Amino acid sequence: MNNHVNAQQMKIAYIGGGSSAWAWKLMSDLSCDASICGEVLLYDIDALAAKRNEAIGNMSGNNRFLYKAVTSLKNALTGADFVVVSIFPGNLDAMQSDVHAPEELGIYQAVGDTTGPGGLIRAMRTIPMYIEIAKAIETYSPNAWVINYTNPMAMCTDTLYRIFPKIKAFGCCHEVFGTQKLLAAMLSEMAGIKDVPRQDIKLNVKGINHFTWVDKANYKNIDLFPMYKEFAKKHFNGIDNNDFDETCDTRMYSFTHRVKFDLFLRYGVIAAAGDRHLAEFCPSSWYLKDPQTVREWGFGLTTVAARREEYRKRYFKTKELLDGSKKFEHELSGEEGVLQMKALMGMEDLVTNVNLPNLGQISNMPYGRIVETNAHFSADSVTPVLAGPLDGVPHSLTMRVSTNFDNIVTNCLKGDIDACLGAFQNDPLVTTSPAVTEKLFYKMIENTSEWLKYYK
Amino acid sequence: MNNHVNAQQMKIAYIGGGSSAWAWKLMSDLSCDASICGEVLLYDIDALAAKRNEAIGNMSGNNRFLYKAVTSLKNALTGADFVVVSIFPGNLDAMQSDVHAPEELGIYQAVGDTTGPGGLIRAMRTIPMYIEIAKAIETYSPNAWVINYTNPMAMCTDTLYRIFPKIKAFGCCHEVFGTQKLLAAMLSEMAGIKDVPRQDIKLNVKGINHFTWVDKANYKNIDLFPMYKEFAKKHFNGIDNNDFDETCDTRMYSFTHRVKFDLFLRYGVIAAAGDRHLAEFCPSSWYLKDPQTVREWGFGLTTVAARREEYRKRYFKTKELLDGSKKFEHELSGEEGVLQMKALMGMEDLVTNVNLPNLGQISNMPYGRIVETNAHFSADSVTPVLAGPLDGVPHSLTMRVSTNFDNIVTNCLKGDIDACLGAFQNDPLVTTSPAVTEKLFYKMIENTSEWLKYYK
Amino acid sequence: MNNHVNAQQMKIAYIGGGSSAWAWKLMSDLSCDASICGEVLLYDIDALAAKRNEAIGNMSGNNRFLYKAVTSLKNALTGADFVVVSIFPGNLDAMQSDVHAPEELGIYQAVGDTTGPGGLIRAMRTIPMYIEIAKAIETYSPNAWVINYTNPMAMCTDTLYRIFPKIKAFGCCHEVFGTQKLLAAMLSEMAGIKDVPRQDIKLNVKGINHFTWVDKANYKNIDLFPMYKEFAKKHFNGIDNNDFDETCDTRMYSFTHRVKFDLFLRYGVIAAAGDRHLAEFCPSSWYLKDPQTVREWGFGLTTVAARREEYRKRYFKTKELLDGSKKFEHELSGEEGVLQMKALMGMEDLVTNVNLPNLGQISNMPYGRIVETNAHFSADSVTPVLAGPLDGVPHSLTMRVSTNFDNIVTNCLKGDIDACLGAFQNDPLVTTSPAVTEKLFYKMIENTSEWLKYYK
Amino acid sequence: MNNHVNAQQMKIAYIGGGSSAWAWKLMSDLSCDASICGEVLLYDIDALAAKRNEAIGNMSGNNRFLYKAVTSLKNALTGADFVVVSIFPGNLDAMQSDVHAPEELGIYQAVGDTTGPGGLIRAMRTIPMYIEIAKAIETYSPNAWVINYTNPMAMCTDTLYRIFPKIKAFGCCHEVFGTQKLLAAMLSEMAGIKDVPRQDIKLNVKGINHFTWVDKANYKNIDLFPMYKEFAKKHFNGIDNNDFDETCDTRMYSFTHRVKFDLFLRYGVIAAAGDRHLAEFCPSSWYLKDPQTVREWGFGLTTVAARREEYRKRYFKTKELLDGSKKFEHELSGEEGVLQMKALMGMEDLVTNVNLPNLGQISNMPYGRIVETNAHFSADSVTPVLAGPLDGVPHSLTMRVSTNFDNIVTNCLKGDIDACLGAFQNDPLVTTSPAVTEKLFYKMIENTSEWLKYYK
Repeated sequence: MNNHVNAQQMKIAYIGGGSSAWAWKLMSDLSCDASICGEVLLYDIDALAAKRNEAIGNMSGNNRFLYKAVTSLKNALTGADFVVVSIFPGNLDAMQSDVHAPEELGIYQAVGDTTGPGGLIRAMRTIPMYIEIAKAIETYSPNAWVINYTNPMAMCTDTLYRIFPKIKAFGCCHEVFGTQKLLAAMLSEMAGIKDVPRQDIKLNVKGINHFTWVDKANYKNIDLFPMYKEFAKKHFNGIDNNDFDETCDTRMYSFTHRVKFDLFLRYGVIAAAGDRHLAEFCPSSWYLKDPQTVREWGFGLTTVAARREEYRKRYFKTKELLDGSKKFEHELSGEEGVLQMKALMGMEDLVTNVNLPNLGQISNMPYGRIVETNAHFSADSVTPVLAGPLDGVPHSLTMRVSTNFDNIVTNCLKGDIDACLGAFQNDPLVTTSPAVTEKLFYKMIENTSEWLKYYK
Repeated sequence: MNNHVNAQQMKIAYIGGGSSAWAWKLMSDLSCDASICGEVLLYDIDALAAKRNEAIGNMSGNNRFLYKAVTSLKNALTGADFVVVSIFPGNLDAMQSDVHAPEELGIYQAVGDTTGPGGLIRAMRTIPMYIEIAKAIETYSPNAWVINYTNPMAMCTDTLYRIFPKIKAFGCCHEVFGTQKLLAAMLSEMAGIKDVPRQDIKLNVKGINHFTWVDKANYKNIDLFPMYKEFAKKHFNGIDNNDFDETCDTRMYSFTHRVKFDLFLRYGVIAAAGDRHLAEFCPSSWYLKDPQTVREWGFGLTTVAARREEYRKRYFKTKELLDGSKKFEHELSGEEGVLQMKALMGMEDLVTNVNLPNLGQISNMPYGRIVETNAHFSADSVTPVLAGPLDGVPHSLTMRVSTNFDNIVTNCLKGDIDACLGAFQNDPLVTTSPAVTEKLFYKMIENTSEWLKYYK
Repeated sequence: MNNHVNAQQMKIAYIGGGSSAWAWKLMSDLSCDASICGEVLLYDIDALAAKRNEAIGNMSGNNRFLYKAVTSLKNALTGADFVVVSIFPGNLDAMQSDVHAPEELGIYQAVGDTTGPGGLIRAMRTIPMYIEIAKAIETYSPNAWVINYTNPMAMCTDTLYRIFPKIKAFGCCHEVFGTQKLLAAMLSEMAGIKDVPRQDIKLNVKGINHFTWVDKANYKNIDLFPMYKEFAKKHFNGIDNNDFDETCDTRMYSFTHRVKFDLFLRYGVIAAAGDRHLAEFCPSSWYLKDPQTVREWGFGLTTVAARREEYRKRYFKTKELLDGSKKFEHELSGEEGVLQMKALMGMEDLVTNVNLPNLGQISNMPYGRIVETNAHFSADSVTPVLAGPLDGVPHSLTMRVSTNFDNIVTNCLKGDIDACLGAFQNDPLVTTSPAVTEKLFYKMIENTSEWLKYYK
Repeated sequence: MNNHVNAQQMKIAYIGGGSSAWAWKLMSDLSCDASICGEVLLYDIDALAAKRNEAIGNMSGNNRFLYKAVTSLKNALTGADFVVVSIFPGNLDAMQSDVHAPEELGIYQAVGDTTGPGGLIRAMRTIPMYIEIAKAIETYSPNAWVINYTNPMAMCTDTLYRIFPKIKAFGCCHEVFGTQKLLAAMLSEMAGIKDVPRQDIKLNVKGINHFTWVDKANYKNIDLFPMYKEFAKKHFNGIDNNDFDETCDTRMYSFTHRVKFDLFLRYGVIAAAGDRHLAEFCPSSWYLKDPQTVREWGFGLTTVAARREEYRKRYFKTKELLDGSKKFEHELSGEEGVLQMKALMGMEDLVTNVNLPNLGQISNMPYGRIVETNAHFSADSVTPVLAGPLDGVPHSLTMRVSTNFDNIVTNCLKGDIDACLGAFQNDPLVTTSPAVTEKLFYKMIENTSEWLKYYK
């Protein structure tokens, strides 16, 4: 951020600016806040998509923000106060390989974008893109605050910091919000306390993105743990997440909190992410052994076919917005990006969970490792709040995957794709023999080689 | 805090409840907040003083808080949600020795309650009192939140944690607020921005109590460091603190920020405490060599004679309040104790500076050492915000004194008063030879032996 | 050690003194060294076994050491300079459950005394014994040096330090010596350098017992890593360990280094333990999936039936020694206990690998965790040598199991056997679903309940 | 070291090869060992001095080592297995300023080459030389083992590591040997144990060069601390060091161990360096207040006039050696350089004290800081032995100066000589006001500006 960023002349660079998901949410949120004005520079390797979003952004709203599609990182970043990064690394064909190639060997993944064979291969093609982005930020907007939304979150954020250690970047994810909503629903059901905003559920968050743990939860003067224990037992057979989290698309992302409740009853701490994500960090035999096991635990395996369908729908919606047959609705998305920007401009402090290098916020995770905890957002600063140690088996489960991430980033930055095999073989979902796993690894690389030209 | 502390039935134990300084401030603040009710139990070894405060507390105000003098720690603490500790360790005769005995050897102290020969001897008589308090809290109110106001702050807080490691205690001090007020005054003078509340000056605080450093200061989107550099140069010859901080009693606590400006111009970080305190942490030859040097640096040496006079005045005011000739004025004190309690009850989050064991908030100070940084107050939690490392010469100066404190507490807890000589000889104000220093040490112990019976 | 332990009047307490394995080796080694004299107090819960060893010890040898069976820990420990602990926790029936109960669910273990379901259950019955031993040492011989040989090594040693933090204990194991012998054999085969004593192979050792890693190996001025790479490739199909390590009983402990070579070729560091042990620390799918996989990797699963046979043989040998039909042969065992004692008496320094709490010797493992590295033995001191960090996938594999050990010890010390289930479910060999694993856990506890009365 | 350095073809580069002190000792030691052969390349900015040493080296001895003067770092370093660095930074005129300019302000230094105003200014001119040396080593002999003898030891070694982090360098100093000799003398006097070689006195060493502390000392099975306490009391008025350390030149380096005994009686740990060095690390008021105080503590202030005289003598001796009127005597110097080289070639392990970056060997000193502890020398490795924490006041005294060193190196590497003023003002010997100190600082820089051209 330039030292005197003016809330009336904000300059936001959006990398992945052709997105019809995160970009639209940001547009909505920006247009809902009367206290800020500025411009948003949309950059996307799909230049047409950026152009479309320029049109959508400008046709709608109140003209407080001007949207401009640009055709280079340089043009997007130069002079930026904030940089938002939300890209889709590769394409759906690549994701088809990530998610479904391992299934032929009996390795099932619910999401495939964070960890597991799919998440690791996705990281391998994303890291070179983030190397380029980090270098561009260092060159064109070294003082800007950088918000990352792309998965695999931990490895993307790690790459930014390794390439440009002074970058002012953090990674954001709404999975913890879902847990806050669940606890608000619990308060309603178990204590008759209705309509609690998720922000009033105070959590101590510690872990890594999509595998965060909560060891303290309060609503005003109420310790929520005893109530959660009852709640988890009562609903051990599952509770439909869509009943209270209307932002959640049933078909794509369905789960029933059984995994979350099982982990709580085993470890006494709340796993604070969607079950589909949580399951991927645990040994395969626990929740992802086979489709039957997955069904028993009440969550779905998101297929790439379903994602293709979702993309198609968003594409049609884009067209409708552009031809005027539909109107862009400006409503708060529930995301916090704009609140964070305002806090960074000194407008109003905020404490929320984000992904940052560990400078001690989790005392028993390695220094520098990307972790997710609360942080205090204030004028030109994001300072992690001390979350303390992560104890017991959750620490072990978390470290296993986090160390794999660390190994992947280290090897990718060396350009040594072969050396990534070690972490791939050590993934908790991988149950094949080392030799068979090696074949899968190279097959998935072959499948997505178009995106892996960086490694030679 | 009991898990369901009710803001309508708060129970506050006040140790040192006969105080006419901090206790009155708390009474004022409690009566100014319509959202809370409860009772305050006043315990003091001077039982009459507690009785007087009971009367003052109850006669005034709106009856939302009931004040009761009690005659034992047990009665004060049992069932307490909050414990406030603000005692005067020993008496003014003891302080006479602390402050003035070293003067005979040419060792000058501006305050004598924190460090220096006086501060260390004061610690030696305070630590046994805090051992007793910590044990009583462990026994009678282990879940209560404990706020310490007593000096020497770092050593008092350290004793609480060493005796009862699970204590939920923090130490509070308003010295940093003074720096916020100075920066607000600067904004007015240098930038024409008037009436900025001190809370809107955002600081990154790191150090130890009365020797805290600020390496980042912002007001909204303005980085205050470049302005402060100009301000420090402009006013290098001093600026009267009383011009903008009306809470500061001129005669007793006068200073002109010359020390603060000198330290800033030498190290590039803001020393965030009153000059009288800051000077005591530096080598004697810098600011406290002799009365002439002190005068040149624009601050005063607070004599115990002046303190006696102040006590006399407060005693007369007490009498006037009791006989009705004066009315107790309920106005906000500017202290944050009540805001902190409300945050701990889940009413409204707060980020402010407090003294806590170092769990990583200052990355290059020892684990467990009592340090002062920002912390996030939320429902039943105080979590330090990561302040980062303290660099350069300020780190060295701070560590020297902090390590002395650590040695004093360690030896006092062993009951080994003689072993405290090492830290005493290593104090930056002590310029006498080791042998002469040893004589001073034992003379000061002899002078205050009434309060040192704990040591055998 | 009492400060002036006299090499002519050493007093050694042997806990588990009825042993016919480690005790006989110590007897041999003591009798082979003309520079030391003293007495050995043999304590065993099998008092007759201790009596038998008293007779064997005294009938043989040169009378420099007197052997006495004693009937209490107190009598063994009082006045001891050194304490040797080598016990067999439980009996072979208990071990039958440890090793073979999991096989019914397809979980195979090659040894079952260190990790895996068997190792963890064994730890649960051993820890109470070590609590008793640690307390007795604290009471009767707090200054003695304590050498532990019992498995599970890491958890036994950890228990000693947690109960009596000032204990001067270390754990010894000869597995690394086997790797030194392998490297000596390699030098002969690959470079024609014959008859290199294993001690001349200098290793940098880091890890945990039975899962130690070597990232630097030298013989004089030769870096052995390039040669080892050739050697591992050449012999990737296996090399019979018995060809060069004559101390290894073929039938019981057979392996061919395939696991070791595979790990080296994957990670570039030498796994320095027998393959049977190494395999147990890796995911089940790697080397222990089923008997066929085990055979392919060239090592054996040591059955408890085979152990029963071995015990029978040793029992007959005992009888022959006692009735004079066989003579006790005094030859150096290859173990280092006596050399370590001599170094501790200031006779000759020694650097060798031992198990100790991590005080920084492995920079990226937790403080206090029991780890195996080199240490410098000198007069009354064992100081670890800095081994540096353990990197990459080996770090992750090691941490997973080490953290399980830590959780087991923590929970056992709390007396909470149920809480050990979490670590049990997280063991790399356990591939069953959490619910099935839970049943196995309680079945194995039931099987060995006689030894688990400590837990309520 | 090249991997296969051959003890029969060693190649040693000597930077500062014109030296008539350390270089001659090395020549002697090399010629006394029949097991090694090779060549020594002598580089010196005084090329004639290197030439003279070439002649002296080759005329004497047994021809196992060939001496060659070279005229560039490149020629000296290329292909070197070992690099010895012992230079005299600047000249005696510069040292005249270092030692005597501060005296005009009443600041006395006994040596002036390590810390104090003189040591810090010396560092400022030495660091640029070490930057050049480190870069040359990185370029021409990155695998060589580098032995530094130059003072200020800590800052020289730190510079090497900061410029070339993978350098295999360590710093050597014989001050600890003197303490071993003192303890050997004590054994003779107090216990009648005669002729103990210093190497048999086992010490646990921790601290920084010239301010090392020993918290454990044993001779065989004897704990030497109780005896040392008696010895220190008995000789509290001083003991002539020259009585037992014949290597010590009376006039130049005289001291009587009073400082050492005083520190021991105050802190209970042995200060293991000559008193002249120890005194410089303590507050001026302790031992260096004025010449009278120095006399009372029984040590001398080494004047630069005396050093000039010593240089003159060595110069005449050089001439006598060259013209044959005197013969170079080959006797063991007592230094350990050759033993260390042999250990590094895998010939015989050695444990001795050296200066290295702190990787945890002193647990409460900062990571990376140059510290002095024991280390294990073995084939191609120097691994520090864990020395544990440095406690109490000695820790504080040590950290104060060590942090100053760190600040000096950091600022010099940035080329910012002005920023060194902060550490200079914080030196324990500096008792002048900050403003007066600043004048001294710039005067000393002016005096030695010839050697400070690097900064600007």
